[in-house]
Amino acid sequence: MFCKRLINCPSLQLLKTSFVYRPQAIPPINLFRKMSTVGKPIECKAAISYKPKAPLVIDTITVDPPKAHEVRIKIVNTAICHTDAYTLSGNDSEGMFPCILGHEGSGIVESVGPDVTTVKVGDHVIPLYTAECGVCKFCKSGKTNLCGSVRATQGKGVMPDGTVRFHNSKGEALYHFMGCSTFSEYTVVADVSVVAIDPTAPLESVCLLGCGVTTGYGAAIKTADVQKGDTVAVFGAGTVGLSVVQGAQSREASKIIVVDINDNKETVSRQFGATDFVNPTKLPEGQTIVDKLIEMTDGGLEFTFDCTGNVQVMRNALEACHKGWGQSIIIGVADAGKEISTRPFQLVTGRVWKGSAFGGIKGRSEMGGLIKDYQNKKLKVDEFITARRTFDEINEGFEDLHNGTCLRTVLKF
Amino acid sequence: MFCKRLINCPSLQLLKTSFVYRPQAIPPINLFRKMSTVGKPIECKAAISYKPKAPLVIDTITVDPPKAHEVRIKIVNTAICHTDAYTLSGNDSEGMFPCILGHEGSGIVESVGPDVTTVKVGDHVIPLYTAECGVCKFCKSGKTNLCGSVRATQGKGVMPDGTVRFHNSKGEALYHFMGCSTFSEYTVVADVSVVAIDPTAPLESVCLLGCGVTTGYGAAIKTADVQKGDTVAVFGAGTVGLSVVQGAQSREASKIIVVDINDNKETVSRQFGATDFVNPTKLPEGQTIVDKLIEMTDGGLEFTFDCTGNVQVMRNALEACHKGWGQSIIIGVADAGKEISTRPFQLVTGRVWKGSAFGGIKGRSEMGGLIKDYQNKKLKVDEFITARRTFDEINEGFEDLHNGTCLRTVLKF
Ligand SMILES: NC(=O)c1ccc[n+]([C@@H]2O[C@H](COP(=O)([O-])OP(=O)(O)OC[C@H]3O[C@@H](n4cnc5c(N)ncnc54)[C@H](O)[C@@H]3O)[C@@H](O)[C@H]2O)c1
Ligand SMILES: NC(=O)c1ccc[n+]([C@@H]2O[C@H](COP(=O)([O-])OP(=O)(O)OC[C@H]3O[C@@H](n4cnc5c(N)ncnc54)[C@H](O)[C@@H]3O)[C@@H](O)[C@H]2O)c1
Ligand SMILES: [Zn+2]
Ligand SMILES: [Zn+2]
Ligand SMILES: [Zn+2]
Ligand SMILES: [Zn+2]
Repeated sequence: MFCKRLINCPSLQLLKTSFVYRPQAIPPINLFRKMSTVGKPIECKAAISYKPKAPLVIDTITVDPPKAHEVRIKIVNTAICHTDAYTLSGNDSEGMFPCILGHEGSGIVESVGPDVTTVKVGDHVIPLYTAECGVCKFCKSGKTNLCGSVRATQGKGVMPDGTVRFHNSKGEALYHFMGCSTFSEYTVVADVSVVAIDPTAPLESVCLLGCGVTTGYGAAIKTADVQKGDTVAVFGAGTVGLSVVQGAQSREASKIIVVDINDNKETVSRQFGATDFVNPTKLPEGQTIVDKLIEMTDGGLEFTFDCTGNVQVMRNALEACHKGWGQSIIIGVADAGKEISTRPFQLVTGRVWKGSAFGGIKGRSEMGGLIKDYQNKKLKVDEFITARRTFDEINEGFEDLHNGTCLRTVLKF
Repeated sequence: MFCKRLINCPSLQLLKTSFVYRPQAIPPINLFRKMSTVGKPIECKAAISYKPKAPLVIDTITVDPPKAHEVRIKIVNTAICHTDAYTLSGNDSEGMFPCILGHEGSGIVESVGPDVTTVKVGDHVIPLYTAECGVCKFCKSGKTNLCGSVRATQGKGVMPDGTVRFHNSKGEALYHFMGCSTFSEYTVVADVSVVAIDPTAPLESVCLLGCGVTTGYGAAIKTADVQKGDTVAVFGAGTVGLSVVQGAQSREASKIIVVDINDNKETVSRQFGATDFVNPTKLPEGQTIVDKLIEMTDGGLEFTFDCTGNVQVMRNALEACHKGWGQSIIIGVADAGKEISTRPFQLVTGRVWKGSAFGGIKGRSEMGGLIKDYQNKKLKVDEFITARRTFDEINEGFEDLHNGTCLRTVLKF
């Protein structure tokens, strides 16, 4: 039954270990089914982005087996994030086509390549667009969640060895995206770009921890480290902004002001913990949003967050900070070529301008804590799911983004 | 000998106390000479700035006695800072004329108005353009050295009661400047805007702690809080920049790179502790100063400081920071209307943009520590004095600023 090559395969060793020490972890019936694909290419369904602005094409692709330090994952759920739409729009100067988009997903490890020690077949996992190798200059600095290990190749749409694992039915190579490519039934990621999670956590919900929820919540509790009594303003009430709101609420911020141009966002903002809502397009003649916020907070905010990607909003967010100590955190991704500006006096008088990527969260070390927060009802996640669709409806899912009430559409394979 | 009004005068009460408890503090002969002016206007020499770009006019002015919570100081020494020249140039949109400039001075308290409790006649003092009241929202925050107590009136060139203490020989009112106006033999400041210092510290040197030296040194050790082993780049090797250098050196920074367009600054930069010097105008074709610094530090700096006031330099300083954690601190004062810009991605990937006013130092609480650092030879101050002149040579002192080797010209009354 086992060929010689398979017997020496490290992933099989892992399987056998599982059998001996914890046979209950993975039911044998699944195991045997999985084994048939180990080490072999898999044909499966994926959504291919051939060029900017065009609808995604659902087609069968071939997903190569994982090489050393790589993990092949069966994606169970994936959501659509604003950043997928951004790259698809063509405004992302670093977008590479044709590619498999998607970076907010959850799934189960199908197989692992040689030398993978941190996840094993059958683990429930979340792919991480912000890797964590634990040994690079960045990981060891203790000052950032950015990791240098796979950055260069990830930015070029390839695996760390410089090649891709995806080909379409014509045999053409398809680029990876953000080291994740969750818009495929199977994907391959670097072992530093995936974290195993508690298998009792529902995959449909926790896929949102792969980007939006973690980004906003982390920006509030880690990057900003909001303290009890602080005043906070959040520009943009999407999944990211509302997650900032819940992070600020969990820290007992005294005022959480949501600023959004869409009045439909007021109710949901308050449900997530906002104490105030301001539509900047409906202020009295002559009053700017900066004036308004400074007036509402007797001098400005302790923390402001841009969750829109609009550079004028980023400036307003900075200038609404309290003199002497207010900090503004940029989370939104601006269109290529756009710049932020302000008078340097804003900084000389004590305001601080910073940013946050993936909420400052180290995916492999800290995802477990976020899952626990979710399980203990300290972190809302289910509430962001405004639509559930099958994977085949992915283009409709992209359209949902524009309907004005969408937070996240979650797709199921 | 004492009129009734004088006997009830609070400053006299203080004098009498001095007599009883520490008769050695002020020689009686001085005391009696001073008493003649207490409560009366003083006629003295001052340098009046009638309009932007014009030479200062040395003339006799009248300095009114201090009102409640005010202190009249006999200025002994004053230096000329870049910010005086900036306001005189007309580029400072908030400059008010005619005025008495000067904010880097030292002197001796001549008299105090009612309710002054923190300094007394005869104290050696440094006027503070960054007040410290100890009770406002800012002072109590523990997060900033900015103080709100006299900010509004200081910015308008008047004392906290809205009036001025200076008049020229024609009786015309003259504005105050930065709450200090040290270009006058006598000046009046708010009691929150002055700190008493160890009378054994030489006034000629410690006047520089009134601005430039404190600003740079504080920016390094307080605002940035440079740690052992950090890499630092300082743009602009004036008194401010060189004081950043010595702050970084006192913290055992591993690399301190000075960037200046004036090659004459290399020697002095190394004397103050720089490990490297780069002239950005002399790089190989196609290499930017940002490229150069990133190359010299394997990825960028932990801390960069703008000590030039040039907004393009401020941008370069930010972009030369290390991804993930590098912080850039703006100290320089930009021309009115100039703005800083960068791509928001610079911040999202972990760089932090901040600023520093008066080095983040609380003048009344922390000046004593700086004076001690100076006395213990931990902080160079004398080394900044590149010229000594009489007060009458103040216009020549302003010209010194342009000679390419000037750090500080100190004037003596
Ligand atoms: N830094 C990171 O790691 C990271 C991660 C995920 C997403 N992002 C970025 O965060 C941003 C938000 O993502 P999302 O998924 O929540 O997006 P979203 O589109 O769901 O939400 C954006 C919200 O901003 C509001 N908005 C738009 N223009 C506005 C304006 N001028 N003033 C106020 N509100 C305005 C919209 O009405 C909407 O409610 C995007 O730019 C996305 O690319 C960054
Ligand atoms: N934030 C504060 O509290 C505060 C306090 C004092 C001074 N300042 C400001 O700090 C700045 C420095 O003050 P200073 O007294 O040291 O000035 P300075 O004129 O003595 O020194 C400035 C130095 O910058 C160099 N320089 C000019 N352009 C440059 C460029 N493009 N690249 C590199 N170097 C360049 C000059 O050659 C000079 O050596 C000024 O803008 C001043 O107004 C701010
Ligand atoms: Zn995302
Ligand atoms: Zn790493
Ligand atoms: Zn105060
Ligand atoms: Zn100054």
